[in-house]
Amino acid sequence: MGQFDVYETKERITADNLKAADEIRSLLKEKKVFFVNLMASPGAGKTTTLLRTIEGLKDHYRIGVMEADVDDIVDAETISKTGVKTIQLHTGCICHMDADMTKRGLDRLGIDDLDVVFLENIGNLVCPAEFDVGANLKAMILSVPEGDDKPLKYPLMFQVSDVLLVNKTDTMQVFDFDMQRLRENIDKLHSGMDIIPLSSKIGDGVQDWVQYLSEKIEEWRAS
Amino acid sequence: MGQFDVYETKERITADNLKAADEIRSLLKEKKVFFVNLMASPGAGKTTTLLRTIEGLKDHYRIGVMEADVDDIVDAETISKTGVKTIQLHTGCICHMDADMTKRGLDRLGIDDLDVVFLENIGNLVCPAEFDVGANLKAMILSVPEGDDKPLKYPLMFQVSDVLLVNKTDTMQVFDFDMQRLRENIDKLHSGMDIIPLSSKIGDGVQDWVQYLSEKIEEWRAS
Repeated sequence: MGQFDVYETKERITADNLKAADEIRSLLKEKKVFFVNLMASPGAGKTTTLLRTIEGLKDHYRIGVMEADVDDIVDAETISKTGVKTIQLHTGCICHMDADMTKRGLDRLGIDDLDVVFLENIGNLVCPAEFDVGANLKAMILSVPEGDDKPLKYPLMFQVSDVLLVNKTDTMQVFDFDMQRLRENIDKLHSGMDIIPLSSKIGDGVQDWVQYLSEKIEEWRAS
Repeated sequence: MGQFDVYETKERITADNLKAADEIRSLLKEKKVFFVNLMASPGAGKTTTLLRTIEGLKDHYRIGVMEADVDDIVDAETISKTGVKTIQLHTGCICHMDADMTKRGLDRLGIDDLDVVFLENIGNLVCPAEFDVGANLKAMILSVPEGDDKPLKYPLMFQVSDVLLVNKTDTMQVFDFDMQRLRENIDKLHSGMDIIPLSSKIGDGVQDWVQYLSEKIEEWRAS
């Protein structure tokens, strides 16, 4: 075999990104805006969960949403119908949001009149995990059909997220999904991770998530 | 329907990229190194074509290769066996090489002792077309099994590439591929584009491509 060198071209990107993410955190602190980065695979139920979350929070907080997609506007159309301030971000050939793109998105959205901003990140369990976007809370969704073994395949996403929403619990029996096995798989990576089972379609457990999120917002405001 | 704004987060990236690509072109001129950006879909035969190209050129030129992949080293292993200077670039969560990553790759490869450098870009017909990496020649491969209608689906790639290699011509009859129809589809996008049919597996037409490339290299050197 011949000799060759391997160069990880993304390394410098990660370092630049952290600096930009810290700037976002300072901005959010100054503006008193709580920022949630919502991550999941395509089809895990990000948009439906976000709709339920907006429903649960909108009487108490002024909400803004940034919908990040490679190239369409379907999710922004859905979310904007709730009446909350919405912006669609197109990332083009990039499979995640980075902090610089996020900062530009926040500027474009305008956060002076908001209390809480959600970023619905690109549907992907790998890349978004690698990019800190300055969020105060990193929430991930795993849907039951994806399986209870996913922490083994996507460890970084489970390590960096603060809270896991296990969505589509109404399909638990169809898919032989074992919540205890999931917890064991997660405990090896992120001991004590907050886990909230819910079904955004039916509504079960949504109140637990809304309550959890409200407490996080209030804790942060008081800090 | 609610109101929302659409923001193309990639726009600023394209502008920064062009500046970096121009810097690469200046560097190549100074070092007298001819740089080829080789683009195609996954499985179109980039690596096999590159092996044939190296075979045809290596007695006349000192060659270097940058293999860009999201995450593996298979192609760099294959190419390095030819004895040419090879480097593997990992782009991580990015589906193309940009000029900044390319510049860092060239620095890492070291081009002082080279005459020709090939970049085997990420297997993708969309994203690499959008990023100028400062190459002197942009070559794309379309393989017969992909079909003669691909210019309609990926117009930008056919517009920006200088030359099209139509690979796997030995399977032409199996796939009902019509070279005349391909030319007509291309003429609407890039009139007069150079088209070279070949089969990198069998060797047919490879000499035409090697001859074409040698002439381009000599023209550039004389300019």
